[in-house]
Amino acid sequence: MTRTVYVNGTWLPEDQATVSIFDRGFLMADGVYEVTSVLDGKLIDFDGHIVRLHRSLNELDMQAPCSDAELLDMHRELVRLNGIDQGMIYLQVTRGNPGDRSFVFPDESVKPTIVAFTQNIPNLADAPAAKTGFKVISIPDIRWGRRDIKTVQLLYPSMGKMMAKKAGVDDSWFTEDGHVTEGTSNNAYIVKGNRIITRQLTSDILHGITRAAVLRFAAEAQFEIEERPFTVAEAQAADEAFSTAASIFVMPVVEIDGQPVGTGKPGPVATRLRELYLDEMRKAAI
Amino acid sequence: MTRTVYVNGTWLPEDQATVSIFDRGFLMADGVYEVTSVLDGKLIDFDGHIVRLHRSLNELDMQAPCSDAELLDMHRELVRLNGIDQGMIYLQVTRGNPGDRSFVFPDESVKPTIVAFTQNIPNLADAPAAKTGFKVISIPDIRWGRRDIKTVQLLYPSMGKMMAKKAGVDDSWFTEDGHVTEGTSNNAYIVKGNRIITRQLTSDILHGITRAAVLRFAAEAQFEIEERPFTVAEAQAADEAFSTAASIFVMPVVEIDGQPVGTGKPGPVATRLRELYLDEMRKAAI
Repeated sequence: MTRTVYVNGTWLPEDQATVSIFDRGFLMADGVYEVTSVLDGKLIDFDGHIVRLHRSLNELDMQAPCSDAELLDMHRELVRLNGIDQGMIYLQVTRGNPGDRSFVFPDESVKPTIVAFTQNIPNLADAPAAKTGFKVISIPDIRWGRRDIKTVQLLYPSMGKMMAKKAGVDDSWFTEDGHVTEGTSNNAYIVKGNRIITRQLTSDILHGITRAAVLRFAAEAQFEIEERPFTVAEAQAADEAFSTAASIFVMPVVEIDGQPVGTGKPGPVATRLRELYLDEMRKAAI
Repeated sequence: MTRTVYVNGTWLPEDQATVSIFDRGFLMADGVYEVTSVLDGKLIDFDGHIVRLHRSLNELDMQAPCSDAELLDMHRELVRLNGIDQGMIYLQVTRGNPGDRSFVFPDESVKPTIVAFTQNIPNLADAPAAKTGFKVISIPDIRWGRRDIKTVQLLYPSMGKMMAKKAGVDDSWFTEDGHVTEGTSNNAYIVKGNRIITRQLTSDILHGITRAAVLRFAAEAQFEIEERPFTVAEAQAADEAFSTAASIFVMPVVEIDGQPVGTGKPGPVATRLRELYLDEMRKAAI
């Protein structure tokens, strides 16, 4: 089935959806994005993603493309038009098309570009990978210094995913100054006894929307939360490890750089947090 | 006049030139570029730019979009169709449009996207700014670690240009670990007596095509070349400073962070190197 996608207020068949070659998203990676999951045809943590979208836009002095209510309507219409039961909605906002290339931002008369489309993933909640867990390698984190802004500068995360693939594993975890920052497109955690350890929020990592929810549910379930950097060696010696992101929820990590973590199988904490997250977020979905 | 631009083998009016929203250049900044200057309707150092294009493509495991001969024909046709006497040709190659979004590179059946367009700048060689020089501020270099690859991840350089504009100056020079790396879109130099000092080529800076030519001409003119990092303080205390790039050739830098460099006016070395560069490159233009 051809997807119906959204480009600047218009609904289009996916193969006719284009942006100008002068769009700053294309010429200068001057754009931000969000990915919202869909379960049972409903949006998961939509409000969280919109709050972060505004944060990204503000940090870059970019205009919002439309009202939040319009964004919600558009997301719901994308779900409806494409018959999505489980999957994702990708939303990208760029600084728009000034009609030429310049390092100087265009003035406010140039409106942001807004693009959104669905990805249909029938087994998103019941992903086979969640039952076996991710194997990861660690690679140096050479991304820019403002990873807290969710920009489309994703070349290195994409390269990191390819390095993982070449190594025969599922993902890469980035390291900087001897410590793990995060995964290619997810936040990273380890578990020691009753304690969940994950890097604190700075400009070093993305301020994960799924991270915030998972830590809230973990605290409610009486886990201790410790926000600090950890090393690969500490992760390898931990009871469990896992990653979180909107597209993978809570994903057990069972091997790092060839060393099994814990039993080398998804552990009880990651498994429980995944269930908790899915249960709670399904209830709150809109 | 409406420009005629080039997109994947087709000549189009600029307002009809588009790429898919699924192009990896738009979604993931997975693209590289080159800017070639035009003087007297001829291409300046075209071969140098093509060599660097191939280097960028190779570093990213990207396919070349077409042969070098085809690139040359296309550049010349752009000049002709748009009647460019002085200006620039912008060329961008991305990993193409796989039809959906994924961090995993598409297989080789997905062909690169190639886009090119002209910018008409009648006074490019005789730019007024070259007579007064650039004022710059220094800002932290927070770009990714592979600045030697000329990718479209230009958000921070663009932000740096805006910081300069807000400070009432012309450009920003990036600093890292106390030393200047380069300008937002140019290499940085200082002059002390007969010595020209510029940072050595590593992954910290772009391997400027104009840099290579200017250093060659400078050596031929009996200047000493010293390739090493320098600090802002050293630059402020230097006899002269300047920047080089395809679009500005050799541009005197007369003020750094509010401190005049030398006399605070374009100095004899930068002025002479600009003349040398323009003379030699005009002779060699194709």
